[in-house]
Amino acid sequence: MTSPHPLGARVMALIDDLSRHTDGPGLTRLYLSPAHKATAGAVLGLMRAAGLDARLDALGTVVGRWDSTTPSAKTLFIGSHLDSVVDAGRYDGPLGVIAGLVAIETLRREGAALPFAVELLAFGDEENVRFPTNLSTSQGVAGRYQTAWLDGKDAQGVTLREALVAFGGDPEGIAGLARKPEDTLGYLEIHIEQGPLLEAENLPVGIVSGIAGITRGRCRVTGEAGHAGTVPMAMRRDALAAAAEMIGAVERIGATRTDTVATVGVCEARPGASNVIPAEAIFTLDARSPDDVVRNAMVEGILAECGAIAAKRGVGFTFEPFMDSPATPMDAGFQSVLAEAAQSLQIPPRYLASGAGHDAIAMSAIGPAAMLFVRCKDGVSHNPAESITEADADAAVRVLVEAVKLLGRRHAG
Amino acid sequence: MTSPHPLGARVMALIDDLSRHTDGPGLTRLYLSPAHKATAGAVLGLMRAAGLDARLDALGTVVGRWDSTTPSAKTLFIGSHLDSVVDAGRYDGPLGVIAGLVAIETLRREGAALPFAVELLAFGDEENVRFPTNLSTSQGVAGRYQTAWLDGKDAQGVTLREALVAFGGDPEGIAGLARKPEDTLGYLEIHIEQGPLLEAENLPVGIVSGIAGITRGRCRVTGEAGHAGTVPMAMRRDALAAAAEMIGAVERIGATRTDTVATVGVCEARPGASNVIPAEAIFTLDARSPDDVVRNAMVEGILAECGAIAAKRGVGFTFEPFMDSPATPMDAGFQSVLAEAAQSLQIPPRYLASGAGHDAIAMSAIGPAAMLFVRCKDGVSHNPAESITEADADAAVRVLVEAVKLLGRRHAG
Repeated sequence: MTSPHPLGARVMALIDDLSRHTDGPGLTRLYLSPAHKATAGAVLGLMRAAGLDARLDALGTVVGRWDSTTPSAKTLFIGSHLDSVVDAGRYDGPLGVIAGLVAIETLRREGAALPFAVELLAFGDEENVRFPTNLSTSQGVAGRYQTAWLDGKDAQGVTLREALVAFGGDPEGIAGLARKPEDTLGYLEIHIEQGPLLEAENLPVGIVSGIAGITRGRCRVTGEAGHAGTVPMAMRRDALAAAAEMIGAVERIGATRTDTVATVGVCEARPGASNVIPAEAIFTLDARSPDDVVRNAMVEGILAECGAIAAKRGVGFTFEPFMDSPATPMDAGFQSVLAEAAQSLQIPPRYLASGAGHDAIAMSAIGPAAMLFVRCKDGVSHNPAESITEADADAAVRVLVEAVKLLGRRHAG
Repeated sequence: MTSPHPLGARVMALIDDLSRHTDGPGLTRLYLSPAHKATAGAVLGLMRAAGLDARLDALGTVVGRWDSTTPSAKTLFIGSHLDSVVDAGRYDGPLGVIAGLVAIETLRREGAALPFAVELLAFGDEENVRFPTNLSTSQGVAGRYQTAWLDGKDAQGVTLREALVAFGGDPEGIAGLARKPEDTLGYLEIHIEQGPLLEAENLPVGIVSGIAGITRGRCRVTGEAGHAGTVPMAMRRDALAAAAEMIGAVERIGATRTDTVATVGVCEARPGASNVIPAEAIFTLDARSPDDVVRNAMVEGILAECGAIAAKRGVGFTFEPFMDSPATPMDAGFQSVLAEAAQSLQIPPRYLASGAGHDAIAMSAIGPAAMLFVRCKDGVSHNPAESITEADADAAVRVLVEAVKLLGRRHAG
């Protein structure tokens, strides 16, 4: 029996096959690990079978090139990543690589002659779980690799440089990876949404308008310990009670606008005994918006309110930021190409911001970048329960095929 | 140079000397440990030097008896405990034993002839840190020892029974420890306040009106995990944000009356990553009042409000109680004796509830019990910073001496 969604069926089968490669129980595939190497090798084979000129670059990214017959043609990059978080799902990353592969297979089968080269990129370090990096493999392609990353160590004390050499990569070759903006047509990436919007609106795919900027830091409230039975309520300086009021403020301020989110993911009271009034409370703040002005105003508002709560309660409050990542708008022209492609398939274009980071952030430094999100079940990601449908994978591939054809027509000499 | 507070000076010197005995750095003296044994031995020596008929009982309590010449006289017990929490102060417990000793020394030096026997009790298991017990040594004297406690284990897997035998105690002798109510005149205990009221009101001592009942339990909020960047605020079921609102309710309801306290000492968000919306939050509740009706109404109010917050937010909420200890009123007659004794020394009687548990809870089962609290610096206890003054120790001993004399006059044939 033939699937009603042959492209989607092929995507699902190939992703299921790749999910065999893991560093442990479940699916865990850290940058430069044996599972990453096995996955990259499998993807290299798939690219070659599709007729691409494929190889691993100096950082372990799998690169498959489909050359153009047009003289001095630019390159359209399509990609996503193969690495994962610990105990991951199978679609976050591999979906974009495999959907790109199946789209290229389809275009080649249809005999498309494009006025630009197409390169499929399977990055290896998007989750940044093993080493203290930030999208290092796509930053390599974008010419923004920070050499200090090579000295970063994993939990076992292995440096990225050592792991890269053991993997078969080449620290000396990183500088040569940088692509030039003048040779770049742009970058397209398919990725699961990791959120519930498309599911709520019953849409298979959506167009990313921009990737949120992130402020992240550690809040510390210092009060005074005391015996839970003997210090009257009015004489307490309870650090956790103060933190609880602050967490309420984070939630309230984060919800003031629809284009912001603010989250407290970690909270701890110290000394942490049921019969001791907490002397100290630690909590994290993660605040995001696709608009940096909005994000900075939100963080300022949160910190002002936390400060006021601390002053009122006679406790100390400090905020130590450890991430300030600017927002990355997606290219308007590339967004419109994706929208037109979706409409040609009777899919109404739904624009949505990405709250999570992606390799498209790095790639936007050398050319127009855009992303297509695919509906995922319950908005769940970074979890074995991550799930998409064959029909949605099919729709995503078809939108990508149409988008590449549209770009071909727009850039035809 | 003679101290202006000779009784207080002796109390401070003896307590300083006892503080040498510790199971580790700082002061840690767990039940039946080598440090407990050394301390009990030192106290035994002090009692004998004071002319008391002293011994260790089957549970390791040091018992020093001053017999009465009155035929079939009842016994007035004076006591407190020698064990401590981990990294403790030196006064919580030993103050009551040593102040009792110095009071008895004073009474004997003055040639007091009392119509009752006096027994000084130095209990060993008030803090209940090492084994899962509840005031086990004083419960032994009160005839309420629970034999299942003997099978409880410490962190190293040693049972209380094994530790007791190794200490030189006698599990077979526990039943014989029980004193009869008809032979008991009552119980008096001096203890540091562990709170800030006496300091705030510039009073050396205060009279305990009752010991609070305690409800203690574990609250669990279950929401839904999600990516901190991708799930819109309006679609979240954030367990920690819900818990924060509940912690605010605990604080607010606990502060509604002056005779209640409610504390959240432990709080944890799971999975506990800065970029993950918490799926679960765990926090403890400790709610106390010297009036059980008030306490139960408070807990009911807190749980109702937590339930309403959970319902509003679409998260789950459960409460698993692990302690429900009733309040123990102190004896009105014994309180009035302490008040009269204080007034005779120009100390205005200040009645205050005890939020912490004490051996007086156990001893109240066999006769009238009362406690005298001593002002402590900043209300701090269970901490090396625990501090009292020589003058206040002196006042406490003198109040106790006067109280015993008053009881002597009241009970004179």
